[in-house]
Amino acid sequence: MKRIMLTVSYDGTNYCGWQWQPNGITIEEVLNRELSRLLREEIHIRGTSRTDSGVHALGNLCIFDTETRIPPEKICYAINQSLPEDIVVQDSREVPPDFHPRKWDSEKTYEYTMVCSRFPNPLMRRYAYFLHQKVDVTLMRKAAEYLVGEHDFASFCTPRTQVETTVRCIHRLELKEDGDTITLRITGSGFLYNMVRIITGTLLEVGKGRIPPEQMKDILQARNRSTAGPTAPPQGLRLVEIKLLNPPF
Amino acid sequence: MKRIMLTVSYDGTNYCGWQWQPNGITIEEVLNRELSRLLREEIHIRGTSRTDSGVHALGNLCIFDTETRIPPEKICYAINQSLPEDIVVQDSREVPPDFHPRKWDSEKTYEYTMVCSRFPNPLMRRYAYFLHQKVDVTLMRKAAEYLVGEHDFASFCTPRTQVETTVRCIHRLELKEDGDTITLRITGSGFLYNMVRIITGTLLEVGKGRIPPEQMKDILQARNRSTAGPTAPPQGLRLVEIKLLNPPF
Repeated sequence: MKRIMLTVSYDGTNYCGWQWQPNGITIEEVLNRELSRLLREEIHIRGTSRTDSGVHALGNLCIFDTETRIPPEKICYAINQSLPEDIVVQDSREVPPDFHPRKWDSEKTYEYTMVCSRFPNPLMRRYAYFLHQKVDVTLMRKAAEYLVGEHDFASFCTPRTQVETTVRCIHRLELKEDGDTITLRITGSGFLYNMVRIITGTLLEVGKGRIPPEQMKDILQARNRSTAGPTAPPQGLRLVEIKLLNPPF
Repeated sequence: MKRIMLTVSYDGTNYCGWQWQPNGITIEEVLNRELSRLLREEIHIRGTSRTDSGVHALGNLCIFDTETRIPPEKICYAINQSLPEDIVVQDSREVPPDFHPRKWDSEKTYEYTMVCSRFPNPLMRRYAYFLHQKVDVTLMRKAAEYLVGEHDFASFCTPRTQVETTVRCIHRLELKEDGDTITLRITGSGFLYNMVRIITGTLLEVGKGRIPPEQMKDILQARNRSTAGPTAPPQGLRLVEIKLLNPPF
């Protein structure tokens, strides 16, 4: 028995998110099906980040146990032959049998892409949120400063399953402007459900002049979802990387 | 009777190029159909750049004549309601009745996106050429220098319809490297059939060490397609802009 870890990238447009569910096809389901077919045994992958419907990933991580004699580092080549073109395994490797990336200390990076233009760019229609108005990025950067560091992010979280604590630490939060495109890049040890999309939606309210940057402090303190801005739509979001800190391999 | 000019952007993945043809759906055909429906008269657009199957555009130009009373600058809003999401009209305006952008002095800019990585990035699968090996961009830049300026580009042209001359002028040719992505950006007064894709394919041969940069001089002088490299695949190419020089409006 070997434990294999995959680095998985996908275009989330045509999937109901990562996690198996009865009413639509998910990334997890496709990977389980194709891995089981390839390795001729029933495979149950365990994911790290359960991305939502329409959200993309460049480097999500998952593990599974297998008896296969295919060399671990060759599995990515083999599985990519049978996966649809919107799911690509970037890496496969053996990890210790008790290793789980979700339980390991890591740094996650997400990017959210916004485009301020009169009409959408058809080449980015699946990968960006189109705003149809200008926003003030300088104000958004000021507001973002309040979020960096360790805070209780209860206001920036859609209540779903119970979590032990809503305290999280954002290590970096940058806003890059390139022509009419704004990219929010956020790195932290972990994120609450919808946290990046709610942060984005709230910073956009600041950029539109509807919330003053200083109000971020009050929103954090309120620990109440209704004080923050709307949840930005999923297609602008991508999980860029899950960086494992000092992994045992 | 008014003459209208449209700035058209499209994801070329699902189309057999710009120009009408019997065996597949084209951008021209969809625009003619939807404009005719919207304006309640038979519309025949005339294009500027006939992009190939799978090639994308951010700002192709076309004109048509119409009796409509819809204000010219409102046509883009109206037509975008009925176009598929992979074709977006970015601008509509009235131009003089004898104006044709193809006959007007202009500067065209194309970009070609290449990614050097073990596996494709699923978010760029329709918009880049994946190389699966590293290339030497410094060598490619040296080779590119030979192409800038006025030259006979007969070696960099797929013979199709007869053209009066194969002399063209490249104003700028830049190669940008960003992580594993290389973007070739080329600006000139006009391009021969497949010229940007053959230039890209030839520069890639240089980047792989198969053609020394100095040989570009000989390839140009040969005026023979067989001396240049292969035609790079269409999906990496996008027509970025057709900049009309001192237009009469």
